[in-house]
Amino acid sequence: MPRCAAAIPEHAYRSARLPANYVSTPPGEFELIERVLKRLAPSRRAVLGAGDDCAILPPARSRQLFTIDSMVEDVHFKLGWGTPEALGARALTVNLSDVAAMGGKPTACVVNLAVREGVNTDFFERLYVGLGRAAVRAGVEVVGGNVTRASAAAITIALLGEVRGAALRRDAARPGDSIYVTGTLGDAAAGLQILTGRLAAEPRARRFLVKRLLQPAARIEAGMRLARIVPAPAAIDVSDGLWQDLGHVLERSGTGAEIDAAAIPLSRAYRATLGNDPALAISGGDDYELLFCLRREIPASALTRRLGVPVSRIGRITGNGKAVLLDARELIRDGESAFYGWDQLRRAGADA
Amino acid sequence: MPRCAAAIPEHAYRSARLPANYVSTPPGEFELIERVLKRLAPSRRAVLGAGDDCAILPPARSRQLFTIDSMVEDVHFKLGWGTPEALGARALTVNLSDVAAMGGKPTACVVNLAVREGVNTDFFERLYVGLGRAAVRAGVEVVGGNVTRASAAAITIALLGEVRGAALRRDAARPGDSIYVTGTLGDAAAGLQILTGRLAAEPRARRFLVKRLLQPAARIEAGMRLARIVPAPAAIDVSDGLWQDLGHVLERSGTGAEIDAAAIPLSRAYRATLGNDPALAISGGDDYELLFCLRREIPASALTRRLGVPVSRIGRITGNGKAVLLDARELIRDGESAFYGWDQLRRAGADA
Repeated sequence: MPRCAAAIPEHAYRSARLPANYVSTPPGEFELIERVLKRLAPSRRAVLGAGDDCAILPPARSRQLFTIDSMVEDVHFKLGWGTPEALGARALTVNLSDVAAMGGKPTACVVNLAVREGVNTDFFERLYVGLGRAAVRAGVEVVGGNVTRASAAAITIALLGEVRGAALRRDAARPGDSIYVTGTLGDAAAGLQILTGRLAAEPRARRFLVKRLLQPAARIEAGMRLARIVPAPAAIDVSDGLWQDLGHVLERSGTGAEIDAAAIPLSRAYRATLGNDPALAISGGDDYELLFCLRREIPASALTRRLGVPVSRIGRITGNGKAVLLDARELIRDGESAFYGWDQLRRAGADA
Repeated sequence: MPRCAAAIPEHAYRSARLPANYVSTPPGEFELIERVLKRLAPSRRAVLGAGDDCAILPPARSRQLFTIDSMVEDVHFKLGWGTPEALGARALTVNLSDVAAMGGKPTACVVNLAVREGVNTDFFERLYVGLGRAAVRAGVEVVGGNVTRASAAAITIALLGEVRGAALRRDAARPGDSIYVTGTLGDAAAGLQILTGRLAAEPRARRFLVKRLLQPAARIEAGMRLARIVPAPAAIDVSDGLWQDLGHVLERSGTGAEIDAAAIPLSRAYRATLGNDPALAISGGDDYELLFCLRREIPASALTRRLGVPVSRIGRITGNGKAVLLDARELIRDGESAFYGWDQLRRAGADA
């Protein structure tokens, strides 16, 4: 149950109704819950969906994946960026991407919505419309949720998935493995710089890069296909930036890596805006592509067909515990990986 | 993966390290994750615990319960109230209570921690100590989590449980059912009024009432025992206040109720502070007791033995769709139930 340790009017039970100004805005928690629930497809998987203390799900025959992620206003998004529908879809996508990175199939989620004064119900209803549509597309059921007040809007989603075969783990990389990524990197980071006025781009490139930030896709199908490869590849989703996320794989696997800077896949829009400098593609997050490592090298073109998404080979796992960035001319950097990516708490100031 | 659509320093990959002021405070996300994870008991149930994109849980043979709840600074708690350990335990308890209200056994949770500047790592580590201890006591494993920045601290927990037999649902009340509650009501609401300076109490009563707010217990064992009664009782946890939560049962069951005001269980500390006025016990939330409805009336004394917690009979379910509060002298109120309890979003101002 939603609940609140907050001021309770004395003798409330003798008052007929709450004052009108309480009822107007923000809307009541239960009213909002009811309104947003109407925006969701009826639950088929759940024995009992939203509306009770807990949802009831049928027994799970496979091993289950369980993850939680959060998007906070002014940290991960601005209300004025894109549509509420896109924001709702994106909040689910960041979770879907975690399940994709394990090679799993997402199944059911619960949503915690933090609402604040000054943002009307319509916004949250439209957010739920987008969330609901993204859930249907991904085969996920939204089975429950909670609404709370806060000083900033936030959407926190906990997602369940199932994994039939091997799971893609971060600790499975071995020296000699080839390292690949799906899609292109740095687009979302460029989109963010554009939105915050720190980067200029031509209209078409701008649209592409901003869309990559605000409407990311999770590589669910590619992750499930990756999980059929034997032995199971090490994998992670590129959410905090290539260098940081690669660092997690290396740390958990006890390995190093050599990355070929020139092999990092850049989109046409990225190149048109930033040239061939891969800096943002190395450090920038929010692309939700997959990074994975294969024991047996497979040509990128064959993997592209097999996974159904463009794949690039960007380097190899080494045994020396260091992440090294190479390009055709020189060793650009040699050292610890942890200082490349994005660790949001280390940021001192506001973002945008 | 934690991720953040935030400013990425250009050419970050060429800088050796982040400036010192980024590293100092707040601590890095991954550093904080690592530190708090050390505070948790090693996972036995999970195939793979915290540290990857998702936790991996073994297949679930029983039906599963799934719920999410959140505690937000300045909405549900003040940092200065009680210890960080108690806050961590309380954040889990509000979720445990949802599983208890379904008659289930909690199993595993994931935690989203929103940290803000000005609150040091020690606070969050101690919060995790309390959360971890409460998890061990409840047989729950903390299998994953995420850390994000925000303008206010918040803890959001998604909890899984299992239910072997019948689940206790809100929609199972039928006219003629006897209505019971566990424990005493209104204590936490009185504790809140004391903490916020709106109510005075003698030291011993004060300690008891404030403890009921800051260190609530979930009625897990009682809920599981309740679930063995045939037919399965309707049930809900009293988190938003008796009247509001009763209202949810009535609404979902399509019934009404008559509640005997004089039968509402009040603690000695409550009576010593507020006399016999049950106002706060009717409208006040955060007690996390169970309200349930039995087809066959069982004496409260027998139920107290059977459930292992004090039980009081407070009224009966009726067929007329209205919630009515009666006492020995008069009909106190007759009408819709929705306006009695606590709907946090309807509050206009800050709480404390």
